[in-house]
Formats: sequence, structure tokens, C-alpha cells
Amino acid sequence: MRIIGIDPGTAITGYGVVEKRGDRILFLDCGAITTPSTMEAPDRLKLIYEEFNKLVDQYQPQHAATERLFFNNNVTTGIPVGRALGVILLAISQRGLTWTEYTPTQVKSAVVGNGRADKKQVQFMVTRLLTLAETPKPDDAADALAIAICHSHSVKVATMIKRGVRG
Amino acid sequence: MRIIGIDPGTAITGYGVVEKRGDRILFLDCGAITTPSTMEAPDRLKLIYEEFNKLVDQYQPQHAATERLFFNNNVTTGIPVGRALGVILLAISQRGLTWTEYTPTQVKSAVVGNGRADKKQVQFMVTRLLTLAETPKPDDAADALAIAICHSHSVKVATMIKRGVRG
Repeated sequence: MRIIGIDPGTAITGYGVVEKRGDRILFLDCGAITTPSTMEAPDRLKLIYEEFNKLVDQYQPQHAATERLFFNNNVTTGIPVGRALGVILLAISQRGLTWTEYTPTQVKSAVVGNGRADKKQVQFMVTRLLTLAETPKPDDAADALAIAICHSHSVKVATMIKRGVRG
Repeated sequence: MRIIGIDPGTAITGYGVVEKRGDRILFLDCGAITTPSTMEAPDRLKLIYEEFNKLVDQYQPQHAATERLFFNNNVTTGIPVGRALGVILLAISQRGLTWTEYTPTQVKSAVVGNGRADKKQVQFMVTRLLTLAETPKPDDAADALAIAICHSHSVKVATMIKRGVRG
């Protein structure tokens, strides 16, 4: 199963693609879709939508995962992030991918084993779990990979529960 | 010139279409795109996107106007609204419409002449300015018409300035 994790934003949308083969998680790609601030909002969203569709064409993921967004402290950035997430979710529906949303705590717990882990710890574990030579850049790409890893773990647990391995 | 005003939301997206002919503003249509809460977020956004595109097909507006979103008091609704706005803006870019965003104060000032006007006053003036038999329903449709009227006024002022009518 191929999973694409997405960390949306109007300026930078991070993505990370992994493949789950049995108990192994293989790294396929990661990076960021960037849009220039000189471009008008509708055109920036169109660019994000088109680039995301190209990733779906290239990697044919069956599943997409995003992080549930909370903006208690910085409300002004919530709207641009929500708009970018909107066009990603539209593409997810149009392309027939399944979708799951995880809280930041769930992502950190899945990757580091601690829901209160900091950014550096998450990046360290992403690098280690995917046996990468170096920390993925930019941060948004590392975050997106963490979300993809979180989903691959959830799938494993769900499968184990179904098989009666647990409990 | 035809203008579509949009008041986006995942559950209800209000729209209002007006035509500006000289100094007159003619009412063409208003209503709401609604999506069921039982539907998953990506599919709801796809429905909004498709219904909005049908409105563009039907009325061929040259311009789209939205209200700038602020969520100081209710952060949790900001994300679903931002997502819905995202797919509307995507369609605006894909269909080649121009787009303007107005603050709530600008919309109220344009429609009522008072930036602190309440919802009822805005609805009363929308009904009057467009010579409608009754107040547009739901509220989201009336809000969308107010945004469209606001844009038609801005265009008038801009044209008057260009023609040297002002100053």
C-alpha cells in the first residue's frame, strides 16, 4: 500500500510518500510544493492542486493522510492553510484515494512514541525509521513523512486487531 | 458585467449573482449549495466545487467576490470554511474569473452605508436594492448577494475615478 502524507500551506505544502510492505515502511519521495507570494490566491491554489495531482499520477497512492489543524494561537494563518487543504481534499476525492486525518499528538505518538515530542525528535525518528542518509528538507516534507508513517502504523494496528494478534 | 458573490462553508455555501448594467444592479439568482454532514470532507468539497462550476456555466460571471474571513472568536469553524473557500478559489482560477475579497466592514458600508450595520439591516437593504419581493433565504444567500452588491459599487467608484467624475 502506498501512502501520501500532506502538510498543507498556501506558500509551502509538504508531501511525503511511503510504501508499506508487510511490516516494512519504504521511503519513496518527499518534498514541497511552493507557490510565489506574488501570485494571487486562486492561482496559488490552482498550482498546488495541479502539482498534487502530478504526485498522485507519479506514485499512485491508495491513501492520503493529513494532520488535523488547530489554530488557537495563530488564527490569521488558519485560513490560507485551510484553503490549501481544501484543494488537496478535492483532489483526494476526485482521484478516489481514501483519507484519514490525525491529530498532532497521534502523529508524534506514532513516530516517536511520545505525543509531546518536539520537532527535532520527530525529524530524527522519521530519518531513522525510513533509513534516510539525512533529515528530510524542508521541515514541511519531514512533517508530511511523519503523517504518512503515522498512517502506516495505524493500518498495522488495525490489521493486527482484525487478526486477533492483540488482546 | 456579471458578478457572483460567495459566502463559503462546508455545510452551506451561499451564492448570489447580480448583473451590473450602467448604474443599475439587477438580481439574477441566489441560493445555497448544501452538503450532508454524513458525507466525508473530501466528497463534500467535491460537491461544492461541482455545484459552483455549474453556476459559472449557467450565469457566466466575469467576476467573483468573497468576504475576508476572520475567526477570532470561533477558531474551530475557520478550517472547514477555509477548505470550502479553497475549492471555490480553485474554480475561480480555472475558469478565468477575476476575484476580489472584501472585509465585512466594506460589505456593510457598501450595502447599508454603515460598517457596523447588523445582519437584519444588511438583509433589508439587499432586498430593497435588488427590489426583491422578500428577503433572500437562507442568510448565506443574502450575505453572498451583499458581497456581490459591494463589488458592483466598488467597480462604479473605480470607473467614476477613472472618468474624472470624482475630485
